[in-house]
Amino acid sequence: MTHENDKTVATVPPGGTIGILGGGQLGRMIALSAARLGINAHIYCPDPNSPAFDVTPRKTVAAYDDLAALSDFAGAVDVVTFEFENVPAETAEFLSARTCLRPNALSLAVAQDRLREKTFFRDRAIATAPFADVSSETDLLEAVDAIGTPAILKTRRLGYDGKGQRRIETRQQAADAWQALKRQPCILEGLVNFTSEVSLVLARGVNGETAFYDLAENRHENHILRRSVVPAGLASDCTRRAREIGETLLADLDYIGVLAIEFFVVETRSGSDIPSQKLLVNEIAPRVHNSGHWTEAACPTSQFEQHVRAICGWPLGSSERYFDVRMSNLLGAEADGWADVAAQADCIPHLYGKSETRDGRKMGHITQILRNGVDIVERN
Amino acid sequence: MTHENDKTVATVPPGGTIGILGGGQLGRMIALSAARLGINAHIYCPDPNSPAFDVTPRKTVAAYDDLAALSDFAGAVDVVTFEFENVPAETAEFLSARTCLRPNALSLAVAQDRLREKTFFRDRAIATAPFADVSSETDLLEAVDAIGTPAILKTRRLGYDGKGQRRIETRQQAADAWQALKRQPCILEGLVNFTSEVSLVLARGVNGETAFYDLAENRHENHILRRSVVPAGLASDCTRRAREIGETLLADLDYIGVLAIEFFVVETRSGSDIPSQKLLVNEIAPRVHNSGHWTEAACPTSQFEQHVRAICGWPLGSSERYFDVRMSNLLGAEADGWADVAAQADCIPHLYGKSETRDGRKMGHITQILRNGVDIVERN
Repeated sequence: MTHENDKTVATVPPGGTIGILGGGQLGRMIALSAARLGINAHIYCPDPNSPAFDVTPRKTVAAYDDLAALSDFAGAVDVVTFEFENVPAETAEFLSARTCLRPNALSLAVAQDRLREKTFFRDRAIATAPFADVSSETDLLEAVDAIGTPAILKTRRLGYDGKGQRRIETRQQAADAWQALKRQPCILEGLVNFTSEVSLVLARGVNGETAFYDLAENRHENHILRRSVVPAGLASDCTRRAREIGETLLADLDYIGVLAIEFFVVETRSGSDIPSQKLLVNEIAPRVHNSGHWTEAACPTSQFEQHVRAICGWPLGSSERYFDVRMSNLLGAEADGWADVAAQADCIPHLYGKSETRDGRKMGHITQILRNGVDIVERN
Repeated sequence: MTHENDKTVATVPPGGTIGILGGGQLGRMIALSAARLGINAHIYCPDPNSPAFDVTPRKTVAAYDDLAALSDFAGAVDVVTFEFENVPAETAEFLSARTCLRPNALSLAVAQDRLREKTFFRDRAIATAPFADVSSETDLLEAVDAIGTPAILKTRRLGYDGKGQRRIETRQQAADAWQALKRQPCILEGLVNFTSEVSLVLARGVNGETAFYDLAENRHENHILRRSVVPAGLASDCTRRAREIGETLLADLDYIGVLAIEFFVVETRSGSDIPSQKLLVNEIAPRVHNSGHWTEAACPTSQFEQHVRAICGWPLGSSERYFDVRMSNLLGAEADGWADVAAQADCIPHLYGKSETRDGRKMGHITQILRNGVDIVERN
């Protein structure tokens, strides 16, 4: 076993084992990509029905605060990674002391606290929506006065796919929103009038090597990713700026693995009649990301393999894109149409093997190759 | 559970389980592709160190003639397939009576007996090398007289990668060859003066639907596949003939799954000075095939996924090829160079997770994308 503070020896060769916290579809896809490099995966998840358990014989079914189980897990693997950013800080610290955690605990800490995350961006002159720390109803009213409405009140922690959020249209709604979110530490964010949402998936290896996938344009419905189209059709200076931001974050987090950055694209008019695009960072995910699933169908190295390469100390693979693509999530009962999906020309299906179908649950995705480019595709 | 004689209901949906006889790299890659369709794999193999056991929690470690274990296995899965053609006939019959075996027992029986295989071809006017049944030393001498030398004496059963073969240069070597192969039932084959070896990987679904991959040109060393280059560079009438042969075999075997056909390409001169190419079938493999590994890197549907689709009663996927490619096996200690392999541009690695490296053992393969086409590549 090797520790983070001794990076030079922390290479996991074929035959080695990575540990993955979380047994959902992301952990499952990381495990499947590890297998193609001859690397075993050990899944740690409290839910015995986790879909990732179906692709490896190595598993731990235990709570994330079960120190005995975590200790055994750390001893059974060569490096630990995770498929979700809400790994408890204590769990991350406990594992970091016993094995190599990649990405590191700092990256988790920044990503799982919206205030710390936004502050991290602001300290690096990375533009975001206006935001303010909200620890009390008084704070909230002051923040509403400063930022204006509409604005979004979000819990600092544990929100995802729209959970833990309240929209505030008028100053009078502030108190209700504060109660609805149970007076937890929050952040108020000004509503951004964006023209589109895009994301950058990128990776950093042990030696500081970086790889960037092309930006995806994402469409959400009910706060859940509906589809991603690549290329995103951004102006080249915006693409350059996105990569600059990515490099800054990777370096300043001393990041190892795949990182995803979600941006809002806003139009600005500064003195001239010609609008120009500007990027605001929405949030980061210190992991493989739904908006990077298309890489599996359209790149030599998928985001999942890239993540495994990075955390195992391998050279990064090519992130070149072969085709224009559209990735669509199969939500809930949509996956019941698997036979039709599988029969579609130019569509590459991926189903997650989840035993239970629930409304809005991510059951799989399809990547469609767009032979005539994305111009003819309705982006919205 | 559904049986072969009730094909209309023998569809395995996401969440179902395929059983795979054999736990080598082919079984492993089938299991990995099944997972991407949400289908579980149960591996049956006598060797507890089988690499396929590392990609699924469902396994049976038992001999192929262990009827109790086979019975449990048949009850635990929705369909059974195999990664090697030497599944004992009794095993195939036992499983066929209890579950759905795909490909069927007939395909196994034809492929695992060189005499029956060659006779099957001859009965369908499919050209092969000259051959004769050899059941005694007297038979062998008669066969040598009829076919001439050099010729190859091969056991009818259980030969692969050059095992169970003796080359006969002169009539005087016949007796020694017969003794060396332990007087087992054999076949004598005339040596073919071929210009190249090519293979066709194709598939047939439950409803008779077929899919063809592009022909690969293969180079063997010490009877082991060294590399495959695609496209094979055959004349178009040869490609057409290869597909005709493939369709005949699929239909006449009532085949379901992926089939590989190996051909010799010979030059013939019939009356004119311009040589033309002719195909002789060497042998078939009723399974996914080493010369089709490139499909994983260069096609929307790999041969492994295609096999899973076929045996699960799904629609077949596209077998279109995106790029010219060269697939090279990593044999024995070559896999120790995994870090260099992983760093090569335009190379997609696949390692099999085998714990023990032996000389000539298939440890992995790489698929190289040939951006300038195969013309500039030394084919030999």
